[in-house]
Amino acid sequence: MVKVAVVGASGYTGVELLRILYCHPEVAVTCVTSEQSAGKRISEVFPTLRGRCDLVLENLEPVRIAERAELIFTALPHKAAMEVVPTFLELKRTVIDLSADYRLHDAAEYGKWYEPHMNPELLPKAVYGLPELRRDKIAKARLVANPGCYPTSIILGVAPLLKKRLIDPASIIADSKSGVSGAGRSAKVDNLYCEVNDGFKAYGVGGVHRHIPEIEQELSELAGERLVISFTPHLVPMDRGIFSTIYATPLKKATTEQLVKLYETFYHGEPFVRVLPVGQVPSTAHVRGSNFCDIGITVDQRTGRVIVVSAIDNLVKGASGQAVQNMNLTCGFPENMGLEGLALFP
Amino acid sequence: MVKVAVVGASGYTGVELLRILYCHPEVAVTCVTSEQSAGKRISEVFPTLRGRCDLVLENLEPVRIAERAELIFTALPHKAAMEVVPTFLELKRTVIDLSADYRLHDAAEYGKWYEPHMNPELLPKAVYGLPELRRDKIAKARLVANPGCYPTSIILGVAPLLKKRLIDPASIIADSKSGVSGAGRSAKVDNLYCEVNDGFKAYGVGGVHRHIPEIEQELSELAGERLVISFTPHLVPMDRGIFSTIYATPLKKATTEQLVKLYETFYHGEPFVRVLPVGQVPSTAHVRGSNFCDIGITVDQRTGRVIVVSAIDNLVKGASGQAVQNMNLTCGFPENMGLEGLALFP
Amino acid sequence: MVKVAVVGASGYTGVELLRILYCHPEVAVTCVTSEQSAGKRISEVFPTLRGRCDLVLENLEPVRIAERAELIFTALPHKAAMEVVPTFLELKRTVIDLSADYRLHDAAEYGKWYEPHMNPELLPKAVYGLPELRRDKIAKARLVANPGCYPTSIILGVAPLLKKRLIDPASIIADSKSGVSGAGRSAKVDNLYCEVNDGFKAYGVGGVHRHIPEIEQELSELAGERLVISFTPHLVPMDRGIFSTIYATPLKKATTEQLVKLYETFYHGEPFVRVLPVGQVPSTAHVRGSNFCDIGITVDQRTGRVIVVSAIDNLVKGASGQAVQNMNLTCGFPENMGLEGLALFP
Amino acid sequence: MVKVAVVGASGYTGVELLRILYCHPEVAVTCVTSEQSAGKRISEVFPTLRGRCDLVLENLEPVRIAERAELIFTALPHKAAMEVVPTFLELKRTVIDLSADYRLHDAAEYGKWYEPHMNPELLPKAVYGLPELRRDKIAKARLVANPGCYPTSIILGVAPLLKKRLIDPASIIADSKSGVSGAGRSAKVDNLYCEVNDGFKAYGVGGVHRHIPEIEQELSELAGERLVISFTPHLVPMDRGIFSTIYATPLKKATTEQLVKLYETFYHGEPFVRVLPVGQVPSTAHVRGSNFCDIGITVDQRTGRVIVVSAIDNLVKGASGQAVQNMNLTCGFPENMGLEGLALFP
Repeated sequence: MVKVAVVGASGYTGVELLRILYCHPEVAVTCVTSEQSAGKRISEVFPTLRGRCDLVLENLEPVRIAERAELIFTALPHKAAMEVVPTFLELKRTVIDLSADYRLHDAAEYGKWYEPHMNPELLPKAVYGLPELRRDKIAKARLVANPGCYPTSIILGVAPLLKKRLIDPASIIADSKSGVSGAGRSAKVDNLYCEVNDGFKAYGVGGVHRHIPEIEQELSELAGERLVISFTPHLVPMDRGIFSTIYATPLKKATTEQLVKLYETFYHGEPFVRVLPVGQVPSTAHVRGSNFCDIGITVDQRTGRVIVVSAIDNLVKGASGQAVQNMNLTCGFPENMGLEGLALFP
Repeated sequence: MVKVAVVGASGYTGVELLRILYCHPEVAVTCVTSEQSAGKRISEVFPTLRGRCDLVLENLEPVRIAERAELIFTALPHKAAMEVVPTFLELKRTVIDLSADYRLHDAAEYGKWYEPHMNPELLPKAVYGLPELRRDKIAKARLVANPGCYPTSIILGVAPLLKKRLIDPASIIADSKSGVSGAGRSAKVDNLYCEVNDGFKAYGVGGVHRHIPEIEQELSELAGERLVISFTPHLVPMDRGIFSTIYATPLKKATTEQLVKLYETFYHGEPFVRVLPVGQVPSTAHVRGSNFCDIGITVDQRTGRVIVVSAIDNLVKGASGQAVQNMNLTCGFPENMGLEGLALFP
Repeated sequence: MVKVAVVGASGYTGVELLRILYCHPEVAVTCVTSEQSAGKRISEVFPTLRGRCDLVLENLEPVRIAERAELIFTALPHKAAMEVVPTFLELKRTVIDLSADYRLHDAAEYGKWYEPHMNPELLPKAVYGLPELRRDKIAKARLVANPGCYPTSIILGVAPLLKKRLIDPASIIADSKSGVSGAGRSAKVDNLYCEVNDGFKAYGVGGVHRHIPEIEQELSELAGERLVISFTPHLVPMDRGIFSTIYATPLKKATTEQLVKLYETFYHGEPFVRVLPVGQVPSTAHVRGSNFCDIGITVDQRTGRVIVVSAIDNLVKGASGQAVQNMNLTCGFPENMGLEGLALFP
Repeated sequence: MVKVAVVGASGYTGVELLRILYCHPEVAVTCVTSEQSAGKRISEVFPTLRGRCDLVLENLEPVRIAERAELIFTALPHKAAMEVVPTFLELKRTVIDLSADYRLHDAAEYGKWYEPHMNPELLPKAVYGLPELRRDKIAKARLVANPGCYPTSIILGVAPLLKKRLIDPASIIADSKSGVSGAGRSAKVDNLYCEVNDGFKAYGVGGVHRHIPEIEQELSELAGERLVISFTPHLVPMDRGIFSTIYATPLKKATTEQLVKLYETFYHGEPFVRVLPVGQVPSTAHVRGSNFCDIGITVDQRTGRVIVVSAIDNLVKGASGQAVQNMNLTCGFPENMGLEGLALFP
């Protein structure tokens, strides 16, 4: 039984962590924090938890939290995370950080897309927490940088092709679509029901979204060379889900059947990646609430391009579920413990 | 470990049963049937199950099914259920029937609202499966008539008031609202996305919905006298959820505080009923995917009426979750086994 | 051609006014105001208007506005309206006020539900702007108090029954359901997409919603006696629409057919009220974007109660469309001018 | 005043035609047909029309229809259209065909994607009805092939770049997203509310969608050379809207500012194309119910690619609105007559 704190529990990734951890047989959540709602019960903020998890939200005092928890999930905005993570590490706690603060290896790159990094010396110690690519390192990590939602869907989608040198690294275009929970729970006109419902739009067009350096870092490592990608995020009127449609130009000819086989081999034994048979296409509705990443691969005979489509639940495999998967690895639990729930459909 | 069959697995209550049973530690699903999709894998029909439950759908041959299952969930339309349930019972199998076929004690009443009953002799043996009111009988039952979704939300909402003789039995008005999954998965223009989305309507206005005799049977038993109710169902553009707003005239004066206390006492220890504190109001969003029934009670000072509001997930507490709760009772498992999952929010 | 100002143009009723007025052949919008967005073009705030209405939003300076407009729509929150309306009236401008500030005849009642009234002397001069009941007075009014959305749906729904003394005035229960645009456009967590989507809830349960005094004032006048009602508002995950389900106890027996006929007679010639044939039920989807109020009537044979269901678009007949209808009356235009657009379906 | 028939009036493009035509000052709809609902009033099928358009739906008997209408909109599935269009033409009627049957110039190409063409001799006489590119020809046409929804959004989006030889014709990737009304109104499980809501998916991946030959025909003509494109359609949980995100590789370097200027010049004076200022991105919510096509252009500095995003309402500019625009041209009415309505927001 591991004692766990959820720091930043009043956001959507926070409540999703609690939903998952509540059913995890080896976890006791001992502490939840929220600056805005300190003093309230978490079940007042999220009535879904009523009668199951009625902890009182506390202010974020790292030392007091570390006294009661061995492992800390930091579900904070970027910058807020790097203000407290060093203390947790000094106090010998394991940290799974869901923010962007420790995902980039290069502090200068972080500075370019976000702001100056406050503790760049920690970056080399952080492990980018995508278990399918870095399972062993995560198991030994004290600081896991939990991947972003868009990056998870794109990296898992394109990893086999890059690793096997089957596509031109300069040709990758990722057209991604996200549910609204990805925008968080803060009160903004743009995220009001009536602004979002029954509409579809792009945002951050033209290579300006902050997930780009993270995607490129990981894809470059897979490709063995520095690459840049085109990435366009879109907003879908739905609560959860990321869907990425990825286009690339093959370096050698291959059929859909061959590529599906390649993916099946690459992801063989993975508990949370499902490679779809030829002709099937994923849907975010089929992974809603689950930790799966569903992937479909097709070769367009007419243009020669490869098209990969991937679907995840942004709050599960794209955030809190993956964080628990990383926790399982760092704690030596079975990797799928507490994450076996099937998607809610409809 | 109990071997279980799901008959009629290609509908929404069928897939919901499988979602829940897949995580139940004492159940092995050995058999799934579907007339329309026999021969296909269930995971082709519901890709959410892919890699977890890949059973092949079979035709509905009761004897062959009974050979492989000790307990059968019949998730069939009314009439189709009563064509096969007798065979299962003859073969000494336990049946949890999710249709309307065994809910009414009175075959004549069934005939009035549905059609002539094919095996009225079974009606006295069937137990109406609302655990909160009839736990002991269910535990001994061989045929459990799993309640309808609207009835569950209304009966649980009003039971304490009727049982304690606090309201005029003739005064009950239940204005209920349902998500679209309640209409099932058959291809009808009325249930197309574009017909339902961004709209709200009533249907079956004027006391003609088939859930009425079931509600009145149970409420009359609680009241100790025959009563009739006004019941109006509505369709909400959402996947899941039943919300009932129930109005009644008190027989003696009581405050909101007193009634909330009464409900807390009445439902004390119930694993799946949450009585909300004074001033709080349930939402279907807070029970989505869970087996909870959330209830709020208010006295309108100006008119004197009592207003009870209740929220359930129609596919869980209103169907498949309650069916598993009933299975737990008939099998002697802890009542909440496999049903502890928290609601998915957002 | 009448010159018109829209004060408070950056909310949903504001943009809806502009949408309707833009197609009105006798109106020129000369002035739009918004405290928050003053200096921006209205088409930056609402890109739907781009290329059609590109006026610059101004601060609310009544004298400067009155110089350029003969008629002013005040689409402001309550209290903000009564701070400026007197000035417009002093300057001999006609005002159609969409707030609650001039709807109640009784300043004390206003004080009880809102706050002390700042200009109670204007209340006797204001005309409650429901054309179906008060067409002639509106035509002569200088200050029209445009009705609330819930009141419009309930008053039109029940007026014939009360007027003809067919129901017990003490028996009225109105269970109403609203789309989210009724909550306005301010940034609140409660109205975020993920908080509202795929859920249904009641709010203001127990006779506490501020539309109650307005409804009771009008229904009492129709009934010829003081009455109180039970009113419960609910939130539906959709942009637009109010649906009211109204229950009442008849004073004398009548069939559905008789009551439908009564309604047809009562509303004969009304351009925007459609009484549905026996057996048909309105849907908010069928009035979306239009100025119609659709009404269905049914007698429940079993309980004897009358059930009236009515559907409007809260932003059109429930706000801006009705405001234009009132403008037409005060200006002597045909009442349906600019309001003939059919509902958008799907 | 032109007498008009709507053939195939019981689908979504049919009712949208009626909504628009009802407000058109120079049109009288004299005849509506539907094989499924013949004998019913159109307002029974679409209650939005109640009290405004109560014509009785007839069977499709071309000669009888031609007697009463000068211009016929055929809103039929492909194949059904080419069974009746020749008769209308023989009878000297003007036809605006909303199906795919007369969009392709090459009967062999039609045969490859659909089935053998029944009257290939008519193809050279049909004019592809995209007014922005072919206004003069449409004005003289007797048979207008109204463009598909995806093609409209893509062709308008990329026309200026191809026409000006600014992009590599082989580099075009169109990632398009559609609302559900594009799938029509037939009863299919795939289009049920619960199958679509709160999910996002691709379909027809890999260059197999039937709109491809139409898009390539028009883009090839613009480019002056034969080109092929990658096109992936997706399904968005919303009623209306097409959003296309189009990627291309420039042949010469250009800034976002230069390209926005180019588009403004190209579409100068167009009544229904709005080129957005630098940095703004369209949304389908901002064109909902209107005949606009909103276009945004961005150069991705990092990859050098041009990204064009376009948004239309698939039922208006993508179908019925464009059909009325074409009717206006063939009848010599002002092109924007009856099409000036602003988008419904929210």
